[in-house]
Amino acid sequence: MKILVMNGPNLNLLGEREPSVYGDHSLAAINERLKECAEKNGAEIDFFQSNHEGALIDALHGARAKYNCIIFNAGAYTHYSYAIRDAIAAIKVPVIEVHMSNVHAREEFRHHSVISPVCKGTVAGFGEKSYMMALFYALNMD
Amino acid sequence: MKILVMNGPNLNLLGEREPSVYGDHSLAAINERLKECAEKNGAEIDFFQSNHEGALIDALHGARAKYNCIIFNAGAYTHYSYAIRDAIAAIKVPVIEVHMSNVHAREEFRHHSVISPVCKGTVAGFGEKSYMMALFYALNMD
Amino acid sequence: MKILVMNGPNLNLLGEREPSVYGDHSLAAINERLKECAEKNGAEIDFFQSNHEGALIDALHGARAKYNCIIFNAGAYTHYSYAIRDAIAAIKVPVIEVHMSNVHAREEFRHHSVISPVCKGTVAGFGEKSYMMALFYALNMD
Amino acid sequence: MKILVMNGPNLNLLGEREPSVYGDHSLAAINERLKECAEKNGAEIDFFQSNHEGALIDALHGARAKYNCIIFNAGAYTHYSYAIRDAIAAIKVPVIEVHMSNVHAREEFRHHSVISPVCKGTVAGFGEKSYMMALFYALNMD
Amino acid sequence: MKILVMNGPNLNLLGEREPSVYGDHSLAAINERLKECAEKNGAEIDFFQSNHEGALIDALHGARAKYNCIIFNAGAYTHYSYAIRDAIAAIKVPVIEVHMSNVHAREEFRHHSVISPVCKGTVAGFGEKSYMMALFYALNMD
Amino acid sequence: MKILVMNGPNLNLLGEREPSVYGDHSLAAINERLKECAEKNGAEIDFFQSNHEGALIDALHGARAKYNCIIFNAGAYTHYSYAIRDAIAAIKVPVIEVHMSNVHAREEFRHHSVISPVCKGTVAGFGEKSYMMALFYALNMD
Amino acid sequence: MKILVMNGPNLNLLGEREPSVYGDHSLAAINERLKECAEKNGAEIDFFQSNHEGALIDALHGARAKYNCIIFNAGAYTHYSYAIRDAIAAIKVPVIEVHMSNVHAREEFRHHSVISPVCKGTVAGFGEKSYMMALFYALNMD
Amino acid sequence: MKILVMNGPNLNLLGEREPSVYGDHSLAAINERLKECAEKNGAEIDFFQSNHEGALIDALHGARAKYNCIIFNAGAYTHYSYAIRDAIAAIKVPVIEVHMSNVHAREEFRHHSVISPVCKGTVAGFGEKSYMMALFYALNMD
Amino acid sequence: MKILVMNGPNLNLLGEREPSVYGDHSLAAINERLKECAEKNGAEIDFFQSNHEGALIDALHGARAKYNCIIFNAGAYTHYSYAIRDAIAAIKVPVIEVHMSNVHAREEFRHHSVISPVCKGTVAGFGEKSYMMALFYALNMD
Amino acid sequence: MKILVMNGPNLNLLGEREPSVYGDHSLAAINERLKECAEKNGAEIDFFQSNHEGALIDALHGARAKYNCIIFNAGAYTHYSYAIRDAIAAIKVPVIEVHMSNVHAREEFRHHSVISPVCKGTVAGFGEKSYMMALFYALNMD
Amino acid sequence: MKILVMNGPNLNLLGEREPSVYGDHSLAAINERLKECAEKNGAEIDFFQSNHEGALIDALHGARAKYNCIIFNAGAYTHYSYAIRDAIAAIKVPVIEVHMSNVHAREEFRHHSVISPVCKGTVAGFGEKSYMMALFYALNMD
Amino acid sequence: MKILVMNGPNLNLLGEREPSVYGDHSLAAINERLKECAEKNGAEIDFFQSNHEGALIDALHGARAKYNCIIFNAGAYTHYSYAIRDAIAAIKVPVIEVHMSNVHAREEFRHHSVISPVCKGTVAGFGEKSYMMALFYALNMD
Repeated sequence: MKILVMNGPNLNLLGEREPSVYGDHSLAAINERLKECAEKNGAEIDFFQSNHEGALIDALHGARAKYNCIIFNAGAYTHYSYAIRDAIAAIKVPVIEVHMSNVHAREEFRHHSVISPVCKGTVAGFGEKSYMMALFYALNMD
Repeated sequence: MKILVMNGPNLNLLGEREPSVYGDHSLAAINERLKECAEKNGAEIDFFQSNHEGALIDALHGARAKYNCIIFNAGAYTHYSYAIRDAIAAIKVPVIEVHMSNVHAREEFRHHSVISPVCKGTVAGFGEKSYMMALFYALNMD
Repeated sequence: MKILVMNGPNLNLLGEREPSVYGDHSLAAINERLKECAEKNGAEIDFFQSNHEGALIDALHGARAKYNCIIFNAGAYTHYSYAIRDAIAAIKVPVIEVHMSNVHAREEFRHHSVISPVCKGTVAGFGEKSYMMALFYALNMD
Repeated sequence: MKILVMNGPNLNLLGEREPSVYGDHSLAAINERLKECAEKNGAEIDFFQSNHEGALIDALHGARAKYNCIIFNAGAYTHYSYAIRDAIAAIKVPVIEVHMSNVHAREEFRHHSVISPVCKGTVAGFGEKSYMMALFYALNMD
Repeated sequence: MKILVMNGPNLNLLGEREPSVYGDHSLAAINERLKECAEKNGAEIDFFQSNHEGALIDALHGARAKYNCIIFNAGAYTHYSYAIRDAIAAIKVPVIEVHMSNVHAREEFRHHSVISPVCKGTVAGFGEKSYMMALFYALNMD
Repeated sequence: MKILVMNGPNLNLLGEREPSVYGDHSLAAINERLKECAEKNGAEIDFFQSNHEGALIDALHGARAKYNCIIFNAGAYTHYSYAIRDAIAAIKVPVIEVHMSNVHAREEFRHHSVISPVCKGTVAGFGEKSYMMALFYALNMD
Repeated sequence: MKILVMNGPNLNLLGEREPSVYGDHSLAAINERLKECAEKNGAEIDFFQSNHEGALIDALHGARAKYNCIIFNAGAYTHYSYAIRDAIAAIKVPVIEVHMSNVHAREEFRHHSVISPVCKGTVAGFGEKSYMMALFYALNMD
Repeated sequence: MKILVMNGPNLNLLGEREPSVYGDHSLAAINERLKECAEKNGAEIDFFQSNHEGALIDALHGARAKYNCIIFNAGAYTHYSYAIRDAIAAIKVPVIEVHMSNVHAREEFRHHSVISPVCKGTVAGFGEKSYMMALFYALNMD
Repeated sequence: MKILVMNGPNLNLLGEREPSVYGDHSLAAINERLKECAEKNGAEIDFFQSNHEGALIDALHGARAKYNCIIFNAGAYTHYSYAIRDAIAAIKVPVIEVHMSNVHAREEFRHHSVISPVCKGTVAGFGEKSYMMALFYALNMD
Repeated sequence: MKILVMNGPNLNLLGEREPSVYGDHSLAAINERLKECAEKNGAEIDFFQSNHEGALIDALHGARAKYNCIIFNAGAYTHYSYAIRDAIAAIKVPVIEVHMSNVHAREEFRHHSVISPVCKGTVAGFGEKSYMMALFYALNMD
Repeated sequence: MKILVMNGPNLNLLGEREPSVYGDHSLAAINERLKECAEKNGAEIDFFQSNHEGALIDALHGARAKYNCIIFNAGAYTHYSYAIRDAIAAIKVPVIEVHMSNVHAREEFRHHSVISPVCKGTVAGFGEKSYMMALFYALNMD
Repeated sequence: MKILVMNGPNLNLLGEREPSVYGDHSLAAINERLKECAEKNGAEIDFFQSNHEGALIDALHGARAKYNCIIFNAGAYTHYSYAIRDAIAAIKVPVIEVHMSNVHAREEFRHHSVISPVCKGTVAGFGEKSYMMALFYALNMD
């Protein structure tokens, strides 16, 4: 079992950016916990973050045939990047869409995800635990 | 820790209804598994299902001060029951919205949830595992 | 051949409610005529009316494996009850959507039916004869 | 009792065109059966088909004072021909709108009929039996 | 003069539910004050509350020929229950629509009432005094 | 000065069709009066009516280089015939759009004219006098 | 307690303008009754009517620090005057929005009020009694 | 026969303002020609122009019982002044809506007139001749 | 290989109609060049033009079983003729949609084609070369 | 160089009205500072404020040929006064649109300006400094 | 004659990605064939592919003054990259928009291209032949 | 005081790209003038331009804690880059949105800015002077 955790734009600022919305743990701290949990369950886990749409597409392409599952918080690209959507649809690895905040309780534009229809499923609103819940699923996939 | 699992309209037909969408396990079987897992983690868990919007509202009212967390698959009421939304907002128990199917990959009307903005968060698309992921969160709430 | 005739909210007031729109026969009188016609053609026919969305869903569930055809005037639930829509889709009995008035010649909100896409077909605008036309079809189904 | 059965664009290809949607009987075969049924009930019945919007309008005009009822499948003109709508409204003969397929279960543009508001009523989704149901009504009009 | 005061979903929680929006008096307390005022003016007054859409419809049906006026806070059903709208239109008793909060200053979905067009009039935004203003009108109807 | 008066679908029924909307003079009677007035002012005037969109387009094409002005009541084609619009734009003869009824006081779909932007101007709502006002302009064009 | 009753455009024609919609009492007669009632309850009451948007804004500005409550029927400005809305929001006097007719049962454009969100509340549909109900509230404000 | 010609905002600049759209005659010159024509036909004619919405409403009110017909170019108020619309509807004098330019060939917001539904009819696109055509109708009203 | 080139309304005026948009070659000249090219490649080619929607539908019907490919510029019918769309879907011959102008750089209504979804593909914006590119494809179909 | 500073509805209340949005300086104080700055740079500057749409239009008309530049905060008229828009377009003086608050961060209706398309440019969101930035431009126009 | 063929996001996966939609040839194979054809016709041809929006913009900038024509399949950026649109508009090289699939027969979001209005023309739906048709045009440009 | 001037996609072509819209000075020339002015006022100023959305986000991140103010012309990313919006919201440096052209007088899609709500304010329409006005504000911030 190999898992890739991908994070999109501005998530590198986690812990510093609007802590009331996103909590006060850094991305590194969150990744650390995911790593512990994955390894305890005998899975390998890698991490990738970029603010560049193209780099995220390249990473999705590179993940095919390498990973069993991708946990992906696409940040604001969630709401308009049809190019990332096509990349997800083009590879065969199941992708789990993750959001820390409850996107439906925020601005109108955050209510719509263009990648949801091509993802396996979505977890949103549980802060950093959203990642853990996605990992829980990845570790228990059939 | 006391948890209530609520299911809305037509979910009593699980296992029989459109198995390609909803899987082939009955609701009883799913609940059984949730119960095992909850109890193994030292939590109490109760179950409620109804096809009646009013009965679901009554149940939400009844749950206040009794449960620490509600896991709720509101079925089709998700998409138009502002009355259920108000009930969720009126009680203080955190509610986790759950869907078995990836609602965003289905008909247009399923893309919009009127209850999301007042729920803690949403888990959708992982079949019966959606319930397990919600339970995982409930058991690990701060 | 067993047929179930279901009527939704406010149709219990037929004959009394806005007679210029709905005619001046009571629901009982209409059912009587349907019964005569069905029995003359060797079919059994039952009747159910409720103002409760949940009760209509329960009735649809209960009809599966029992009836060959359901003739259903869902009243105003026609325009927003996705829960009834899911119930119709969940059972295997063909459902014929019936309206007494020409819904397309009335208020805007009556132009849209959320249950049409999962029904066998629709008959609307012929007053109580709409039921007879649906029965005519039920008795002549292949 | 004189009845006119009108069919609009592409219905001359019935039996040949997308049989999974429209069945495999030709329009001639359907008309034959309607004729039999009408004559057995002592009614005269005529038939008209055209792919030309103007010819359908001319035919509607010509039908006034000649027929007691028109059974009309306007094909795709249903969805945009306000000129046909005006023709129906201009004559005094009641017009029954007929569709073989369940238009509400198909493409979005087929969900809206511009002629429904000026027709007596609508029958849709019962294959060639839609015509028979309309005939049943015509033969039993008050 | 006989008056019926009806309250819809979640209003049984008044005083407890979001007090900043709905005030801190219980529904019982509000009803008590309405009763005092009605009786002082020589009118009889009854009360009904339910979270069930169907039960509210049944109550509206039951009120015909019994009451001179209905004061009705339909709660969230205000925004989508065309079935309740039809029930109001079907009976001959004038219905006064009441809201405690200023619905137009809240979420978008609360700006639209599907029952307003068939009610006598609307009073909204005056807290529990909204009921008193409606009662004032009922007692002074011509 | 040569003028062509064109009338579209259903206007051949003038005098007979919905007299409360369109008045009780036949198209022949209206044309007679236009002819008198035109000839008194030394202009030649011709008339054309068809229910066929294509025939109206052919007539517009045929009018180029022959007439100085076209007075055109396109009937219901006004609201959707982009083909007629293109025909008007393609010829160099100024076209005056005419409606007998006040289209803006009728059904929503009559509020929009697809030919207005390519016509010289519009006269609507004055019954048969709408034609006379258009003729008045045609006779006084610079 | 000082109260200002303001009336906007066309309300000076009350009693004369569309009596079936607005009743047959003149604005003077209505004001007379309000005055009687206010004075009986020990309150001072003033009146202002104008067809000029700017004059209504000036009057709202002038009312600050002078009145305890404003009863305001803004007439058609209700539906588009964001300038009046800003004036209401800018002063600290509570404003009660009043309409004589049931605006929700009339033309679409009357369903939306741009001033509602900044008013205390709304009373609509009770004819001249709408003013009395507003006065009833003003006299009983906390 | 007494006729009032009313002009709304910015029409006092005619001849100077965007001559390619509105022609190069001043409003005074246009009025002069209308006066000549009216008087030649034995009619009295008055003129009123204002940039103030309220002043136009006052003038409409003042015109009742004084004039047989109003010719009205409401300028940009055409597109949003529901207050002027109500004033037109409130008086019994027929109002003819006039525009010099072809409003349907210009910006989107000019395509919609809120006063058309309550006017007798509309003349648009014929430059200053639009006024003459309206006068022609006024002089020939039944 | 047999190819049919069909042209819809107003294309008979090519060379004369708005040359800045459509170029200055007549349809005959364009057809001549297509014929040369087709015959040089050993294909037969026929031509059909009509302004009549019904005639175009008849022609499409007539083309089945006779041609291997249809090159079709439907003119303005492109934007609303669902009847032509159904005709294309009903026959089995692949249809190539052609436009001379870049429809997406023109009026809003030209941005939407109702026939695109049932055509093989679309070529637009290359003037008369659009036809040549379509022919190039037809001659090289697999 | 002569500059006119115009302010629309409710801006006379600056300093008093919602200070958290509009700051706590009065309009007089702001004008004073603009005057100082203008005069220091050798320019004349005049001021005009009105709550009346018509008065603002009159002032714009009066400004032509008198001023080199107009700095204009149209207040809420910004969002719907097409009459003011036409006045700006009718005169030849460049107009700079100014807003103190960041209109795009406030209510939806404030996001749209009907006057922007005919203004030279827009400055919004800098409090009273918005006026200074506009003045800076006016003083440095080519 | 120098031609640049540009491909946007995910097109590097051609042959592997959803072969039922995009065919089973790799981008390299397609480019090979284009090269052969171009060189046979005496033209130079270069190729560029990137998943990065910014890199595509840089490439468009770099192409100015170097190429006579650009053949561009922008992939999913077609539907939202106004930045690429501006880049196309900024350079003087004609750009031919190419799509392999019939975008109008797929998801709603693929029906709209933000780059079409600034491209020379569009070719869509012919699989890899779409590129060949574009090349055919490029080689025959005037 | 340290200021960063950022420019987005295609602004590197200033002076060359559509000079009638964007003027004929290069970005270097504009920056030169800004630098002069900033330094004369004792402020440091830096410049950054990129066509890459991700690079602009990285630059915004890098600017935090380094600059007092950012002057940002986001080019076409203004209209859809929610990722850039989030980056602006995530850092604490005030950002001034700048556009050279009057975006509201251009294509529809340019009327909406997704970054405005999180910027300090906006300056648009003054050509290169827009930058100077923003700088004027930055130098005079409190």
